[in-house]
Amino acid sequence: MSKTAILLIDCPDRKGLVAAIANFLVREYDANILNADQHQDVELGLFFMRVEFTTDKAGCDEAQFRAVFSPQAEEFRMNWQLHFVEAQEKVAIFVSQYLHCLADLLHRHQTGEFRCKLSLIVSNHEKARALAEFYEVPFHCLPVRAETRAEVEAEQLALLAEHGVDLVVLARYMQVLSPKFVEAYPQRIVNVHHSFLPAFTGAKPYHAAFARGVKLIGATSHYVTEILDDGPIIEQDVARVSQNDQLPGLVQKGRDLERMVLSRAVQWHLARRILCYANKTVIFA
Amino acid sequence: MSKTAILLIDCPDRKGLVAAIANFLVREYDANILNADQHQDVELGLFFMRVEFTTDKAGCDEAQFRAVFSPQAEEFRMNWQLHFVEAQEKVAIFVSQYLHCLADLLHRHQTGEFRCKLSLIVSNHEKARALAEFYEVPFHCLPVRAETRAEVEAEQLALLAEHGVDLVVLARYMQVLSPKFVEAYPQRIVNVHHSFLPAFTGAKPYHAAFARGVKLIGATSHYVTEILDDGPIIEQDVARVSQNDQLPGLVQKGRDLERMVLSRAVQWHLARRILCYANKTVIFA
Amino acid sequence: MSKTAILLIDCPDRKGLVAAIANFLVREYDANILNADQHQDVELGLFFMRVEFTTDKAGCDEAQFRAVFSPQAEEFRMNWQLHFVEAQEKVAIFVSQYLHCLADLLHRHQTGEFRCKLSLIVSNHEKARALAEFYEVPFHCLPVRAETRAEVEAEQLALLAEHGVDLVVLARYMQVLSPKFVEAYPQRIVNVHHSFLPAFTGAKPYHAAFARGVKLIGATSHYVTEILDDGPIIEQDVARVSQNDQLPGLVQKGRDLERMVLSRAVQWHLARRILCYANKTVIFA
Amino acid sequence: MSKTAILLIDCPDRKGLVAAIANFLVREYDANILNADQHQDVELGLFFMRVEFTTDKAGCDEAQFRAVFSPQAEEFRMNWQLHFVEAQEKVAIFVSQYLHCLADLLHRHQTGEFRCKLSLIVSNHEKARALAEFYEVPFHCLPVRAETRAEVEAEQLALLAEHGVDLVVLARYMQVLSPKFVEAYPQRIVNVHHSFLPAFTGAKPYHAAFARGVKLIGATSHYVTEILDDGPIIEQDVARVSQNDQLPGLVQKGRDLERMVLSRAVQWHLARRILCYANKTVIFA
Repeated sequence: MSKTAILLIDCPDRKGLVAAIANFLVREYDANILNADQHQDVELGLFFMRVEFTTDKAGCDEAQFRAVFSPQAEEFRMNWQLHFVEAQEKVAIFVSQYLHCLADLLHRHQTGEFRCKLSLIVSNHEKARALAEFYEVPFHCLPVRAETRAEVEAEQLALLAEHGVDLVVLARYMQVLSPKFVEAYPQRIVNVHHSFLPAFTGAKPYHAAFARGVKLIGATSHYVTEILDDGPIIEQDVARVSQNDQLPGLVQKGRDLERMVLSRAVQWHLARRILCYANKTVIFA
Repeated sequence: MSKTAILLIDCPDRKGLVAAIANFLVREYDANILNADQHQDVELGLFFMRVEFTTDKAGCDEAQFRAVFSPQAEEFRMNWQLHFVEAQEKVAIFVSQYLHCLADLLHRHQTGEFRCKLSLIVSNHEKARALAEFYEVPFHCLPVRAETRAEVEAEQLALLAEHGVDLVVLARYMQVLSPKFVEAYPQRIVNVHHSFLPAFTGAKPYHAAFARGVKLIGATSHYVTEILDDGPIIEQDVARVSQNDQLPGLVQKGRDLERMVLSRAVQWHLARRILCYANKTVIFA
Repeated sequence: MSKTAILLIDCPDRKGLVAAIANFLVREYDANILNADQHQDVELGLFFMRVEFTTDKAGCDEAQFRAVFSPQAEEFRMNWQLHFVEAQEKVAIFVSQYLHCLADLLHRHQTGEFRCKLSLIVSNHEKARALAEFYEVPFHCLPVRAETRAEVEAEQLALLAEHGVDLVVLARYMQVLSPKFVEAYPQRIVNVHHSFLPAFTGAKPYHAAFARGVKLIGATSHYVTEILDDGPIIEQDVARVSQNDQLPGLVQKGRDLERMVLSRAVQWHLARRILCYANKTVIFA
Repeated sequence: MSKTAILLIDCPDRKGLVAAIANFLVREYDANILNADQHQDVELGLFFMRVEFTTDKAGCDEAQFRAVFSPQAEEFRMNWQLHFVEAQEKVAIFVSQYLHCLADLLHRHQTGEFRCKLSLIVSNHEKARALAEFYEVPFHCLPVRAETRAEVEAEQLALLAEHGVDLVVLARYMQVLSPKFVEAYPQRIVNVHHSFLPAFTGAKPYHAAFARGVKLIGATSHYVTEILDDGPIIEQDVARVSQNDQLPGLVQKGRDLERMVLSRAVQWHLARRILCYANKTVIFA
C-alpha cells in the first residue's frame, strides 16, 4: 500500500547533496518524488531540504528508515525528520478570554484546512467552553493565579502527556509559560503576538502602536522560546490604519491579522513546511 | 480672479466648530468649499480640520486673512495655517550615495506629481551630480567629515535660506542632522528610514531585519525631530520576504518601499494634507 | 436624553452646502457634529455628505426631522436619509452549503463588531442549522428547485416582511434572486462574489482564474442589482497565488478574502458609511 | 574556470526525474547545485524544473551540453534550455509617450538590478530621446502611421536582428504589434497592461475601472501573444483606490503598479525564472 512521507533535512552545504538524497530515495524506496524544495544559507554554509515522496515499499516506517538512512545521514552530518502524512498530529489549543483565534481555528479544522486531531482545549477561563463543546473538543479549565502557576503548569503538562500532544497552539493565551514548559515542547509551541515583531514586544502592543502613531499594524506568529516574543518568526501580516482608527479600531483590525498569521503557522507546521535555524524559519510554502 | 486656498486648523474640540468655520468662509470670502475633512481625537479632546476652498474675493492673502480670522481663531483657541495652491513650495533634496529615491523624486516632479519648485540638491558626494544636471536642478556638493560637520551645516543652512526653502527632503541622506538644524525647520524636514519603525531604528536596519528573520520588511517616512528615527510617522509600507531573499534581496525590495513612502510623504506635505500633534500625523488623504 | 444620528445627503453640487447643513443642525438641534465627511464628483457635479451628530433636542425623530428639514432639502434638491444609531437594523443572512462566511459573521456579531440584530438565517440546505442554533439565531430551511423557485421566494419575502428585515446578506447563497426579490430590497442586499469583479463574473470563478493563470485572486462584496454580478462594488481584496496553489489552494485562500470583504461591507452598511450613485459606492470610512 | 548555468526543463511527469537530472549534472559536470526548484501540474501530468549549478568542466557550452544531454532528454521527452549566467541577454525597450516605466527600467539597470545589456530603445515619438541619451542607450525614433505600420515593423525587426536582441520589453508602447512580429519573438516580448487582467482588456482600462467603481486598480505584465492582452501572465499587483481618487488619481497610482510589475517581469525573465505552458507561467522566484 502506498504511503506519502515528508523528509526534512538540514546539514552543512556541499556538493552532491541533492543527487545523493534523490538517489537514496529512488534506490531504497522506489520513491516517486512529489515535491523537492531546497534552500541554502550561503553565508553560514547550510543546506535545507524538504522532500515529499510516495513509496510502495512494505514496512517503511521511521525505525526502518533510520536503519537504512543513517550511514548517509552521518556522512553528510544531517539532521533529519521523517513524517508520514497519514499520521495525524495531535494538537492542543490554549486560549484565554479572546476567542476569535480559537473560533477561527475550530472552523478551519472542521472545513478540513488542518490535517490534525484537535485533542484538547485548555483555558484559564470558562469563556471558551461553549465553543469547545460545539466543535466537540475536550475542554479543560485551569485557572491560573500567581501562586498556583507552577502547579497549574504541571497539570497542563500532564494533560498534554496523557493525550500525546505533538503541537501546542497559543491562541491568545495570556499567560507566560515557564522555561520548563517551553523546553518540553521545543519548536512545538506556536504563539500569536499581536504586533509586528520585533516592534512592540510585551504587553499591550496595540496601545503602544497607537501611541507611536504607526500607519500599519501587524501580527506575528512564532515558535515560543525562553525569551518572550523572541522565538523564530513563522508568519507576519499587516493592515493599514489611519487617524480614523482609534484604539478599538486597531484591536478589531488586529483580530483579523491574528487569525490569519496564526492559522497559516498552524497549517504550515502540520504540513511540515517549516525548518528552524539561527532563530529563524525556512518556510517551504 | 479666483484663488484656491487650503486652511488647516487644530484646536480644542467643542460644539459649533464646523458651522463656525464654514460660515466664516462663506460670509467673508463667498467661498466655494471644495473639500472639508475633519478629525477628532476623542481622548485628548482635540479637533482638526482641512478645508480646501476657492474664492474670488480681491486682496485675499495671508495678512488679510489673518486680520479678519483672528477674532474667531482666538475665541476657539485655534492654531491655523493658510496656503494658496498657486504659491509653489520651494524644496531642497539632500542625498548621499544611494540615488534611487532621488531619481524617483526627480522623475515624479517632471511628470507633474508634485506641486513645487525643486530649488536645489545637496549631497556629501559627487555621485548625484549627473542626475541633478539632467533634471536641471542646482547641485551643491558639500562633503562632511566629523570635524567639519558644524561648518558644513552652516553652509547648508545658508543655502536653504538663500533659496527660501520651505521643505527639506532627506532622500537617503546618511548624515545625522544637528538639533540646531532640525529646530530651524520644524515639521519641514521629511526623512525616509529603511525599516518599519519603530522596529530597527538606527544604522543598518536591513541587516537587523535579516538577522531577526522577519517575514515582511518595511520603510517609513517621517518628520525629523531631535530624537533619531522618532519623529511623527507620515507613511509606511511593507513587502513580503522569504528565505530566498538574502541581504541583497532585502535591500533591493527595500528600495521600492523607500521610493513609495518618501514620494507619498512629499506629495501629501505639498498638498497640505498633514497635521502633526502628539508626535503623530493626521493625514487628510 | 442625548441621541446620536447619521445624516446622509446627496444632491447637485453648489456653493454653501457645507455651511447650510452645518448651520441647520446647529440651529435646529444644537447639534454636536462628531464627524462630517463629504465627497464631490466633479465630472457629474454631485455632492455627497455624511454627518454624524448628537443632539439633546426632545422629540427628534425621522418625522420631526422631515418636517423641519424639508424646505432646505427641497431648495438644494437633496436626497437624504437619517438614521439613529440606537435603532438597530434587522439583518437576515442567506447561505447555502459553504459556511465560512456565515461562521465568520456570527462570530463577529457575537464579538460586537456589527451593530444590528440578526433576525434570521435562511438556507436551501440543512447544513447551517447547527451553527445557527449555537449562536441562537432562528433558522429556516427552504430548499429550492427550479420549479419551486417562485414559491420559495414568496416564502422568503414573507419571512423577511414578518421580521421587518432591513438588510439581506448573501453569505455564499448559491441561488440567483429574481428581479422581483431584488426590487423589494434596493441597495439592501449585499452579496459576496468570489472573484475580483469585473473579472470572472458568473459561475465557478476560481476555475476561471486558475485557467487564466492569474497571480492574484480576489473577492468582491457588492449590492445586488437585477444584472448578475454587476451591482455597485462595496469592497474588494486580493491574495497572491502561485503555481503552488492548485485549484483547492485558490478556493482556500479565497475563503479568507470572501470573509473579509463581506464582513467589511456589512459593517459599513450598518454604520451608514455607504452612499450609492451611478452604480458605484462612496465609502465614508 | 568556473561557470554558472541555469537549466530549465519541462516534460511529462514520471518517477525518477529529479534523481536522473541531478545525477547527470554531477556525473558529467561535477556540478555544484546551487538551487533546484520543481513544479508539477498534477492534472496535466507535467513536470517543470529549474536547476542553477556551477561547473569547472572545460569546454562546457550549449553545443557540448546538447551532445551529452540529448539521449536523456529524448528518453524523458524533455524540452530544455541552458543559459550561462555570464552571457548577458540583449534587450530592446519599446516606448511611446509615457516615460515612467522607461525611466524606472533605466535606473534599475544602472543600479544593477538587471543582468543584461540594454541594446536599444525604440519609440514612435521623440519624447524618450533625452532619457535614452542620459543613460547612453542608442535611441531610434520610428513614427508609426496606419499606412506605414508594416514598413515600420520591418525596420524595427531589422534593428532587433542587427543588435541580436533576445528580449523586447514594451514599456507602455501604445502600438499593437502584428502577428508576424509576435511570432518572431515567442515568449520573448514582455508587455505591461495597465489593468488587472483579465478585467479591462483593450484601450483605456483606467477609464473602464473608474466607470465600474472598482476598489482596487491593477497592472499586469505578460508575454505577448497574437491575441491582445491574452498572453501568459507573469506578474500582477494592485493598489487601493477610493472615491477620493478621480481618474487622474487612478492613472498616478497605476504608474507605480506598472513600474513594479514590469520590472519584476524583466528581472525574472533575465534570471531565467519563468517557464510557460498552457498559456500560464511558472515562476521559480
